[in-house]
Amino acid sequence: MSRTPTPVVGMAQEQIHRHKVGILLRHLHLGGSLTRAELAGRMGLNRSTIMALTAQLSAAGLVHEESPTDTGRAGRPSFLVRVRPNWAYVLAFDVAVDRLVAARVGLGGAVLDRREAVRARAGADLDHVVEVLARFGRQLHEAAPAESVCVGIGASYCGMIRPGDGMVRFGPDMGWVDQAFGAELSRRLGLGIPVPVGNEAHLGAQAEQQRGAGVGLQNLLYLHGDVGVGGGIIVGGKLLDGDGGYGCELGHMVVNPYDGRPCGCGSYGCLEAEVGERALLDAAGRPPDLWGRDALRAVVDDADRGDPVAREALRRIGDWLGIGVANLINLFNPGMVIFGGMLRDVYPGAAPQVRHRIATNVLPVARERVRLRTSALGDDSTLVGAAELAFADLLADPLGVLDRAKA
Amino acid sequence: MSRTPTPVVGMAQEQIHRHKVGILLRHLHLGGSLTRAELAGRMGLNRSTIMALTAQLSAAGLVHEESPTDTGRAGRPSFLVRVRPNWAYVLAFDVAVDRLVAARVGLGGAVLDRREAVRARAGADLDHVVEVLARFGRQLHEAAPAESVCVGIGASYCGMIRPGDGMVRFGPDMGWVDQAFGAELSRRLGLGIPVPVGNEAHLGAQAEQQRGAGVGLQNLLYLHGDVGVGGGIIVGGKLLDGDGGYGCELGHMVVNPYDGRPCGCGSYGCLEAEVGERALLDAAGRPPDLWGRDALRAVVDDADRGDPVAREALRRIGDWLGIGVANLINLFNPGMVIFGGMLRDVYPGAAPQVRHRIATNVLPVARERVRLRTSALGDDSTLVGAAELAFADLLADPLGVLDRAKA
Repeated sequence: MSRTPTPVVGMAQEQIHRHKVGILLRHLHLGGSLTRAELAGRMGLNRSTIMALTAQLSAAGLVHEESPTDTGRAGRPSFLVRVRPNWAYVLAFDVAVDRLVAARVGLGGAVLDRREAVRARAGADLDHVVEVLARFGRQLHEAAPAESVCVGIGASYCGMIRPGDGMVRFGPDMGWVDQAFGAELSRRLGLGIPVPVGNEAHLGAQAEQQRGAGVGLQNLLYLHGDVGVGGGIIVGGKLLDGDGGYGCELGHMVVNPYDGRPCGCGSYGCLEAEVGERALLDAAGRPPDLWGRDALRAVVDDADRGDPVAREALRRIGDWLGIGVANLINLFNPGMVIFGGMLRDVYPGAAPQVRHRIATNVLPVARERVRLRTSALGDDSTLVGAAELAFADLLADPLGVLDRAKA
Repeated sequence: MSRTPTPVVGMAQEQIHRHKVGILLRHLHLGGSLTRAELAGRMGLNRSTIMALTAQLSAAGLVHEESPTDTGRAGRPSFLVRVRPNWAYVLAFDVAVDRLVAARVGLGGAVLDRREAVRARAGADLDHVVEVLARFGRQLHEAAPAESVCVGIGASYCGMIRPGDGMVRFGPDMGWVDQAFGAELSRRLGLGIPVPVGNEAHLGAQAEQQRGAGVGLQNLLYLHGDVGVGGGIIVGGKLLDGDGGYGCELGHMVVNPYDGRPCGCGSYGCLEAEVGERALLDAAGRPPDLWGRDALRAVVDDADRGDPVAREALRRIGDWLGIGVANLINLFNPGMVIFGGMLRDVYPGAAPQVRHRIATNVLPVARERVRLRTSALGDDSTLVGAAELAFADLLADPLGVLDRAKA
């Protein structure tokens, strides 16, 4: 059971310095190029301290500094600092219900190279998944410029993950229970770098907050639809992980306790059972052997063309989705609700019901400022989240990690 | 819309020092007496720094230091430091659905003196509530030892509160909308001290985490039953407040979307409509003019004596409560769920249904470590929370606040 850490106010000077270097690099990684003056303002430090920090990062090869051009304004012009995008990179992996993706992502967040394979919906064993991803990873690593350096690896997985060691506790889609995915992928890649793993919706939420629809928001909800519905919830700027790292399971909120559809979890009437892919296809009268993103988009297209059965199916899904989202807004008073994965396709046609339920079920003061959006990062929200997970160590201690990566 | 604060790593030496003094005092306020060696260990500071900090707090009159007695163990014996319990105090107020309470609470958390009035269930206007509380507060202030000093005031209110200014945005029980409760109570008390106000369940959750059933837990849920059901949710050691301070409204999670009972919020089938006092009394066949804590306890007593109607009523309430709690455990993966207010009485008889729903509806890995408890602070959880709110300024900067309080 985790306990409140005792506040420790003593921190060694060297730690504080490494922490400052990391925060500065994080500003540049997320914010693009910034002048030294802007960095000084954002970090609450004076310009000479910033100059010393950027000089260290520049000497380490992580950033460029550019001479100022005359801005025409009064005062001293300021050096422009930006990350070197194609030198320090991470490998990011995404195990989704319908595909396996690997990418090389540079400092600053640009996807520099990628490999992708369609994945059949049937169960897949650990060995097969890791074999495909490790092959992709080695290809990406070999194709990287000779002088570049891999500073981290991260993976997104469509299931419940134990923090710390990348163990898949429960992967309903593949039938995985307690599979050492992170450790096995690290071993097969053979790069001597551990592979932290995150739940896809958790990582999607963080990616949308860092680089997507919710940049800078302190409180947001991210609903990730695929076969089921995953959740990532940002509370006070941080991912809600709970005591064991297994929070945010909004897809298993029971919204229909009477005649609920059976859910993969063994229960009935869960949000994901009522609004997931199968629920929509059944409501639209599609045959049970039809499934997947294309089948789902066909229903959305039919509804757009005015087909009454498809419209009614979206309306029905929207009502359950609205009950769930209204419950969540009452609980979290978020600034934004973001619909990702297949819910990006479903949400526009379901929005009237969702808005109606919010207006009916949410206390007025709790919905005063909430905005509803679809994911800005699209299908890459989970991959981007995996890349940010991979960058975490570098951004905590850039110079230390770089020393180890080059050793 | 609140935004992620830019990390600021520069903090003036004087600020850091005040922060350390506050953290030390917080350890003593919550933990009782500690030796200087224990304080050094908890704060990660050396003993000479601790000695300098405790000397300042001792000179200011906030703590006592006692000479060490020989412990019989090797090594230097360490001075024992404890708060002075009857000198610096706060006034704490609790506006609950059935009572108005005021208390003088000493540093360290002991209730030194209190006044209480039963409140009729009918609507009460701001003027009346503030008049009663201000009279109590002045009495408590006048009865305090002459040399003692009031360092803060805090209030708990059974409604939705705007953080910062103690504005009651929505008080369903009294029919309040946008009433300046905190400002008005401060004005009538005439002590020149602002009155921060918190939602009762938010404060109850924090009190249980600081001094009750959930001491030290990072993630816990607190359900506070009265006429309705309020919620206080601790995530990562902090209260979930959301974008506007209006989060945690778990009582308005719709659990019964088909034939739900009407709720005071205007919706149907909310958790509080299905498990609140009226729902239980109706299920037990009590007449509509019977209400309140005693009526509710009579149902519980009847069930304990084997009365089948009362038992069935508790079973029915327990099932809805279980659906709600299971949804919350899936969302928050908490270490503990605490039942407070009237739910302390209801929970034991409803526990089998609650546990059944958790076993059925919660994903196994999310319920591995959760514990279910009733409130350890009983009816005082909200009052204790209000006192802690009142102490917040002192614990952030003890010497600064004391200078102002004595000025």
